Amino acid sequence: MQHLSNQLRRDNKSIGFVPTMGALHEGHLSLIRRASKENDMVVVSIFVNPLQFGPSEDFNKYPRDTRGDSEKLKKEGIGILFMPEASDMYPEGFSTQVEVEGISNKLCGKFRPGHFRGVATVVTKLFNIIKPHRAYFGQKDFEQAVIIKRSVKDLNMDIDIIVCPIVREKDGLAISSRNLYLNPEERKAATVIYGCLMETTNLIKSGIIDKARIKRFMEERLSGEPLVTEIQYASAYDPETLDALPEVKQEVLLAVALKIGKTRLIDNVLLKI
Amino acid sequence: MQHLSNQLRRDNKSIGFVPTMGALHEGHLSLIRRASKENDMVVVSIFVNPLQFGPSEDFNKYPRDTRGDSEKLKKEGIGILFMPEASDMYPEGFSTQVEVEGISNKLCGKFRPGHFRGVATVVTKLFNIIKPHRAYFGQKDFEQAVIIKRSVKDLNMDIDIIVCPIVREKDGLAISSRNLYLNPEERKAATVIYGCLMETTNLIKSGIIDKARIKRFMEERLSGEPLVTEIQYASAYDPETLDALPEVKQEVLLAVALKIGKTRLIDNVLLKI
Repeated sequence: MQHLSNQLRRDNKSIGFVPTMGALHEGHLSLIRRASKENDMVVVSIFVNPLQFGPSEDFNKYPRDTRGDSEKLKKEGIGILFMPEASDMYPEGFSTQVEVEGISNKLCGKFRPGHFRGVATVVTKLFNIIKPHRAYFGQKDFEQAVIIKRSVKDLNMDIDIIVCPIVREKDGLAISSRNLYLNPEERKAATVIYGCLMETTNLIKSGIIDKARIKRFMEERLSGEPLVTEIQYASAYDPETLDALPEVKQEVLLAVALKIGKTRLIDNVLLKI
Repeated sequence: MQHLSNQLRRDNKSIGFVPTMGALHEGHLSLIRRASKENDMVVVSIFVNPLQFGPSEDFNKYPRDTRGDSEKLKKEGIGILFMPEASDMYPEGFSTQVEVEGISNKLCGKFRPGHFRGVATVVTKLFNIIKPHRAYFGQKDFEQAVIIKRSVKDLNMDIDIIVCPIVREKDGLAISSRNLYLNPEERKAATVIYGCLMETTNLIKSGIIDKARIKRFMEERLSGEPLVTEIQYASAYDPETLDALPEVKQEVLLAVALKIGKTRLIDNVLLKI
């Protein structure tokens, strides 16, 4: 792969990169289409990265569909699919970690210790292997995008990080590989998330900028849905630092992580006011 | 610098890189000469990296001689001197660290907590800025070279790491910027280190391979010098893992770190038996 990337760069071809964990859906495809528009060559990676799953998380049952994924990529006309094994990425003796301090312990990081270190490490490796000019991430994993942008800036990686809008189902649910875990009732209940984000947006637009009040509103709205088993966070945050601010200003991130049954779902909207 | 490196790579020029903290001496110059032989363009960086100094260490008094260094580089015919400020390398909000676990806490790492994290982080940054094909390090900082090789391999950086032999004064003292701290008596006393390494080499060649005995021999030899105020380590190690092994086999690293007065000195020899 590295050899191929060197060749492409010598030939003055631009490389767009979309890292994924497979089980490709319209969210991924929107990244891939954007990358195709903006680059001479698109590389898609599929790698379910063990480093970013906690011991009690869904690494083993995470959806895998190599054949389906390849078909989808062929239809999109993608040239390069990079699909390493865990033993290629983490051979014996592997011991280097990339850690973005501070941000990695907020929001999702608080509930998934080590997760963002695993993400920053694997993405740094993939960047060094694929040598892209531009890399594409979805806004749904907002914290991930902030951390990748931070690590790229801090480590002087010469790569543009492009964050693309969330793709949603017709009823507003953010498309995610983990939606496959939901049974029909849970799937219906999951619309509470987008409903909550939209109503909170309207609340803020109507002039309510007190964070405590926004937080209370969101939590009440979400816990009104009986199939919600746990709200991990639901509030307004500074989109750069991911800190909770006492008052909403200019740009604000409304972000939610919760469980419906056993399935963990996240979503967010970015507001400018 | 990144722009310049991109240009060089587009023109198919190979880039050799020698990272330094300045106060250039014959050790550095030997790396630079090797890099000149093997590459179309040599980049030397001078950056006294605050991240790799502990709070009680010599960051402030570390020797700096920008004018003398530039003169030396001009004489060598070096094209590019990269000399960033700390505020360029670590602007506000900087929060990413590269950590090589395990090895970073052995030998020097035990006495300089955080040191090798600082080294791995700054070297990763410099590699991303300078984009070298080959980078040159001295064997004197043996643990540093092991850690850089490990991080380059683990993070898939496409760079050859070349470790060059220690350059010594006529009496055997390894050349080091910190030798400038020694007064004449201390300078004379410092020859105990190389003396010890040579005698231990002979001991091993004569058939003594028991690690405990080697360690005792080295410590006794070094503490025989009254100006030695602290022996941090002095023994035989596995050159890959830096672990102390019960018996010397095939390849062995004899390594020493000690203080003469207040000055910390390190040295080593690599033996094949």
